[in-house]
Amino acid sequence: MPQLITLLTDFGQSDSYVAEVKGVLLSAAPGATLIDISHEVPLGMVVAGQYLLSRAWHRYPTGTVHLVVVDPGVGTPRRALAASAGGHYFVAPDNGLLTPVLDAATVVQLAIPDGASATFHGRDVFAPAAARLALGEALEGLGPAVADPVRSPLPAPREERGCVVGEVIYIDRFGTLITNVPAAAIEGAGQVTIGGEFSAGVGRTFRDVELGSLVAFGGSGGTVEIAARERSAAQALGVGVGAEVRVGATDTRGEVGG
Amino acid sequence: MPQLITLLTDFGQSDSYVAEVKGVLLSAAPGATLIDISHEVPLGMVVAGQYLLSRAWHRYPTGTVHLVVVDPGVGTPRRALAASAGGHYFVAPDNGLLTPVLDAATVVQLAIPDGASATFHGRDVFAPAAARLALGEALEGLGPAVADPVRSPLPAPREERGCVVGEVIYIDRFGTLITNVPAAAIEGAGQVTIGGEFSAGVGRTFRDVELGSLVAFGGSGGTVEIAARERSAAQALGVGVGAEVRVGATDTRGEVGG
Amino acid sequence: MPQLITLLTDFGQSDSYVAEVKGVLLSAAPGATLIDISHEVPLGMVVAGQYLLSRAWHRYPTGTVHLVVVDPGVGTPRRALAASAGGHYFVAPDNGLLTPVLDAATVVQLAIPDGASATFHGRDVFAPAAARLALGEALEGLGPAVADPVRSPLPAPREERGCVVGEVIYIDRFGTLITNVPAAAIEGAGQVTIGGEFSAGVGRTFRDVELGSLVAFGGSGGTVEIAARERSAAQALGVGVGAEVRVGATDTRGEVGG
Repeated sequence: MPQLITLLTDFGQSDSYVAEVKGVLLSAAPGATLIDISHEVPLGMVVAGQYLLSRAWHRYPTGTVHLVVVDPGVGTPRRALAASAGGHYFVAPDNGLLTPVLDAATVVQLAIPDGASATFHGRDVFAPAAARLALGEALEGLGPAVADPVRSPLPAPREERGCVVGEVIYIDRFGTLITNVPAAAIEGAGQVTIGGEFSAGVGRTFRDVELGSLVAFGGSGGTVEIAARERSAAQALGVGVGAEVRVGATDTRGEVGG
Repeated sequence: MPQLITLLTDFGQSDSYVAEVKGVLLSAAPGATLIDISHEVPLGMVVAGQYLLSRAWHRYPTGTVHLVVVDPGVGTPRRALAASAGGHYFVAPDNGLLTPVLDAATVVQLAIPDGASATFHGRDVFAPAAARLALGEALEGLGPAVADPVRSPLPAPREERGCVVGEVIYIDRFGTLITNVPAAAIEGAGQVTIGGEFSAGVGRTFRDVELGSLVAFGGSGGTVEIAARERSAAQALGVGVGAEVRVGATDTRGEVGG
Repeated sequence: MPQLITLLTDFGQSDSYVAEVKGVLLSAAPGATLIDISHEVPLGMVVAGQYLLSRAWHRYPTGTVHLVVVDPGVGTPRRALAASAGGHYFVAPDNGLLTPVLDAATVVQLAIPDGASATFHGRDVFAPAAARLALGEALEGLGPAVADPVRSPLPAPREERGCVVGEVIYIDRFGTLITNVPAAAIEGAGQVTIGGEFSAGVGRTFRDVELGSLVAFGGSGGTVEIAARERSAAQALGVGVGAEVRVGATDTRGEVGG
């Protein structure tokens, strides 16, 4: 069985950076299977990388190695990490990227090899470590234990006067607003308010409303999503990541700014 | 020999959607080889998905499984299909996407598994079915036969006063207009008119004219294409999918709007 | 061990072109591992393809086959080449793309197979040749030797009054200006001037300056790069490929246009 290594970065797909990382991986771990999670994380946006990681990693078989590099602090003294959690392995900078898996993780610190470039640790630090894990080397052999990896949890929703109040944490290609409100909150809910201003009805999918209308539903990632049928909800509303979202049994708008 | 599975969707490559599908495929069919056809089908544009499928599938070895998901009707009662044709396998929503292979196909209806999300059948319905086919399970084991899959054939060209009259069915990255007129029509033709307005000379490639000039030629997909050398014909002419294209022995312009 | 084939083209990832090439490769060389270097080379820009090739190829294991197609002259009498260099194999049009590896290369000319399209040699000429090389066929079996492949070396830097004077040869996704000045030139240098107008301090990474400021450093590709922290240097300066870059011990600006 070939070893699986996934890659999640903000390197884009135009330049040679991803290909250089893959060359290092395949030179050190010949026969590994490489799968791209995404290389289009917005530049340096650790929280988007976290969100994508949280959705994808557990879909892969046990033993998969995930190389995750969104690293605005490359070249500073921030630590480089390897971790194991849930039977999977991870390599990433110590900037909160691994927060989704840290609760049950064993974490070690990677050394920076002699001759590593100051600006491309994806190739010179993380790829060699990922290859060693893919080859079956024990995590503990990669460096000393780290007890306090950086955590930057996504914001948590709260209860307030019968509503669940959360926020938009990601906007996808379709312009769908993905929130941190658990999908269960929408069962029995009557209305969802976005940004204190716009309200969406509750449905099961984006097809449950007329063209262009807003609908809130339990999304495929397990949280409430707001979409506009056949157009971008994000563009239609002019809202972005961080916009407040209220899910309640009755009109939720009156409670905002009151 | 590892099983081959290709993926053709409108999911884009920024979000986690393609990676979630691939995780499901590799968990269920370890060792499968995954190849992206494209994930940049314009959102929900079934006809573009059809065109790309028609160009690519037969280039792959017999036994390949093609997962094709452009699915604006996900979550509605539209059926989910698996099919075999020409020694290949296909999974796709029943919305016409599979039209290019339906003439000689055996088609069955996939069940929607318990717990499937309402909005992400690519991951929850089509990927598990594709994995079962990749593992060698018989098509008939996946569901009851379907006698009347939805067909939405691409428009067919017609003969008219010595011309072959067709239309633009796809525009590629280079801005080349790809038509439904068979390449054979251009042999002996003297002129091609686009949109009733613009005329192109006939050549063998886009290099056969001066910089920026229009040329019509028999394209690599077997139909007439119109290109402008070193610029986008689509932008230069301001025409899109559906624009009329006339291929004739003499001046074809006078016959338009007459 | 599966054979590795990398792909570097300007085909983009939206259309079926890359997928058609991959289908031909996997039909002829079943079980090959295909890795994308990039398909986003700017249209027809041979020099950008060269640069990306020069960064990536040597990261792969010996025996890898590199299919490189940036081919604005497809369909003209330009030759089609296969080459071996440094234990790697290459197929590409004879337009200078292979310049980075030609110094120690053996080069042969590929025949154009009967029935090859005039506009898609990536699929009809280069993919079949790459598959033959991946299957272990000798280079010499693919065609007659070529003694004079086209070379278009990237511009070389020069010494001038204590400065090293080079130019911008590539701009990456981050807007970083990548030059042809060897990274060693920056050790001991005091200032870098771009486009005769803008000056950058010297650092180790883009983190060594304040937000938005310019910094020059030895980049991961072995040459001097100029970046702006958390924004695009290319946009900030309005400079592009070809802009002059001077690296010197003292103020380098006074020497320009003096």
